[in-house]
Amino acid sequence: MEPGSRGAAPGGVSVSAVLPAGGSGERLGGATPKQFCAVQGRPLVSYAVRAMERISWISDIIVVVSPENIETMKTIIEKYGHKRVTVVEGGITRHRSIFNGLKVFAENEFSSHVLQKPEVVIIHDAVRPFVEEDIVSKVVMAAKEHGAAGAIRPLVSTVIASAADGCLDHSLERARYRASEMPQAFLFDIIYEAYQQCTDYDLDYGTECLHLALKYCKTNAKLVEGTADLWKVTYKRDLYAAESIIKDNLSQQVCVVTSGKETLAQVGFLLPESLKSQIKVEAISISSIKNDSRLQNIISGQCYNFVCVNDKRCAIQETQELVDMLEKSNIALLYPVVLISVYLDISENNSFSIGMEDLTTIKNFARETKKKNILVYGLLIQYK
Amino acid sequence: MEPGSRGAAPGGVSVSAVLPAGGSGERLGGATPKQFCAVQGRPLVSYAVRAMERISWISDIIVVVSPENIETMKTIIEKYGHKRVTVVEGGITRHRSIFNGLKVFAENEFSSHVLQKPEVVIIHDAVRPFVEEDIVSKVVMAAKEHGAAGAIRPLVSTVIASAADGCLDHSLERARYRASEMPQAFLFDIIYEAYQQCTDYDLDYGTECLHLALKYCKTNAKLVEGTADLWKVTYKRDLYAAESIIKDNLSQQVCVVTSGKETLAQVGFLLPESLKSQIKVEAISISSIKNDSRLQNIISGQCYNFVCVNDKRCAIQETQELVDMLEKSNIALLYPVVLISVYLDISENNSFSIGMEDLTTIKNFARETKKKNILVYGLLIQYK
Repeated sequence: MEPGSRGAAPGGVSVSAVLPAGGSGERLGGATPKQFCAVQGRPLVSYAVRAMERISWISDIIVVVSPENIETMKTIIEKYGHKRVTVVEGGITRHRSIFNGLKVFAENEFSSHVLQKPEVVIIHDAVRPFVEEDIVSKVVMAAKEHGAAGAIRPLVSTVIASAADGCLDHSLERARYRASEMPQAFLFDIIYEAYQQCTDYDLDYGTECLHLALKYCKTNAKLVEGTADLWKVTYKRDLYAAESIIKDNLSQQVCVVTSGKETLAQVGFLLPESLKSQIKVEAISISSIKNDSRLQNIISGQCYNFVCVNDKRCAIQETQELVDMLEKSNIALLYPVVLISVYLDISENNSFSIGMEDLTTIKNFARETKKKNILVYGLLIQYK
Repeated sequence: MEPGSRGAAPGGVSVSAVLPAGGSGERLGGATPKQFCAVQGRPLVSYAVRAMERISWISDIIVVVSPENIETMKTIIEKYGHKRVTVVEGGITRHRSIFNGLKVFAENEFSSHVLQKPEVVIIHDAVRPFVEEDIVSKVVMAAKEHGAAGAIRPLVSTVIASAADGCLDHSLERARYRASEMPQAFLFDIIYEAYQQCTDYDLDYGTECLHLALKYCKTNAKLVEGTADLWKVTYKRDLYAAESIIKDNLSQQVCVVTSGKETLAQVGFLLPESLKSQIKVEAISISSIKNDSRLQNIISGQCYNFVCVNDKRCAIQETQELVDMLEKSNIALLYPVVLISVYLDISENNSFSIGMEDLTTIKNFARETKKKNILVYGLLIQYK
């Protein structure tokens, strides 16, 4: 970690995150704990880690897993190139796992060295893959001001209390209550104090961090309305939903990049026109891909599909520049990027051909980029 | 309705169902109310209606929709061949809609004639497509005994109460509370009495029928633990999940049917052997498809995939018999049935051929069955 290399946290505080990922996933009905279930070929926990990693002002990301999954987690971090992540051994309950995660910032029981204690610590679930910077930022700001904060959502069902005989005792007025979701954030000293004070009963049977902050530190958490995508993957159907959402996100936007040349620009105009009734299209015409700020903005805005219209003669070079930019942005860590490189043959020559050498170059190039999760497809078009 | 034509209800009571389907679906984020959203090309409400319709001891199914959707609902009933369904105009809130639905059994404000009042009435949501007979039966039995009953599920998130300043007031101990789900069931006289007694405030701001039975009839509903598939389609992700579950269900089981002939029986043995590591396989060898009770049991058990291995000479006839049986069972009303008709050529003759006439016959046959939601595929195999 290079100090100063990342964006400033909201309110200028130092922030780290703890992700409890020790659950057994018994509600999912499978042998694999849900945080390790593959969604589009990638374990769910990797999406949640990446969602945190994408937020530049989060310093350390502590992932707490049960002892038998430590190696699995380390392999995931290696495979998907996650940075700033420390894996910590969890306890037998959720609260004990979070406590272990917090200890990394205060003592070296679970790590070889004590990490820099943050002013605010985020607690987020490994099974909530879609958290956006906006809500994390709001929760962190609220935690700075109030000592504790958490995302909430309206209740989907009425909540009822049952009597000892299995009959209805009373139902709660739905409007007065909320579902407590994640992320939550706390002034580190408050939540750490709460965990140090709390009883074994709390650690074994409780689950709600906001409750500990209230009970042991008299801190009434600020509640922040979250969006629907904060939901927790609990049942098998939630895995289906997560998969569909990811697929949907990946196909929502395409960016058509053309170099400034006149004929290319014409194609660069016609293509978006014909696509725009189907999909959100960004079309940009640039003289040099390298360091173009509009392109950089589009990539930061989570665009995963690119059509790059090149003059045949300098196609590989331009495609390479775009790949470099995509690689630097790290977006391909989360989902695959699809890049269709259109090689436009605008010569008057009628022969429609591409040499074996060119083909091999493109194939090798695509094979290399695939390792970086960037899928390059070449397309040769004769245009007159 | 022919009296006595259907199975007996649990406890011998008469049972009907009311499905409120008047919601606007604002949480879904689309223009179409969720109950009318297509899942695998079929509106969600049609799945819920079919789930009730499949239960033979439910006499009438009242679907309550908002005035602007009455024609849509009637078209759905026509298109999917739903029986025993009465469409009723809903009110502006959920409780008012349910009340309108109940009135059909007591007065003729919303229907040309009063329907036979049931002893027990089920209330189920149009947006809960996966309800099984087992839970409906349990809830009906409990309602008969206790006056009211409802399915419940464990809470997924902690429930919290917020104070006026938007901060946490307290969190509920999760183990003591449950989410109230559907189906619910009531002695008709109790729930109708409750709706007649309740205030405009209840009708406008309440949503929980169990609460009305408790408040106005002092009836403490029996709570029945339901399965995870009772969940309500609320957000767009739930539509994704519903679609995946339906797709999954459709492909979970295949039935291989072979006639008794020796060579066929051999194929009928080899095929299930090679399939069974991938999918649940039922293999039956029968001399005549017509009225075979094992086959009928498999169809009743919701099998949607059939491989029918026939001798080439009598293939169409046997396939026709299976199609007749499938049609009679009505299972294709809910999802498409896939029937692969394997025409086994066991002649010594080496020529591998099928006449144009045969091809046309099969094509026309498949075209006809497709209208009944039964997808027939023909496969000619030479086997020596």
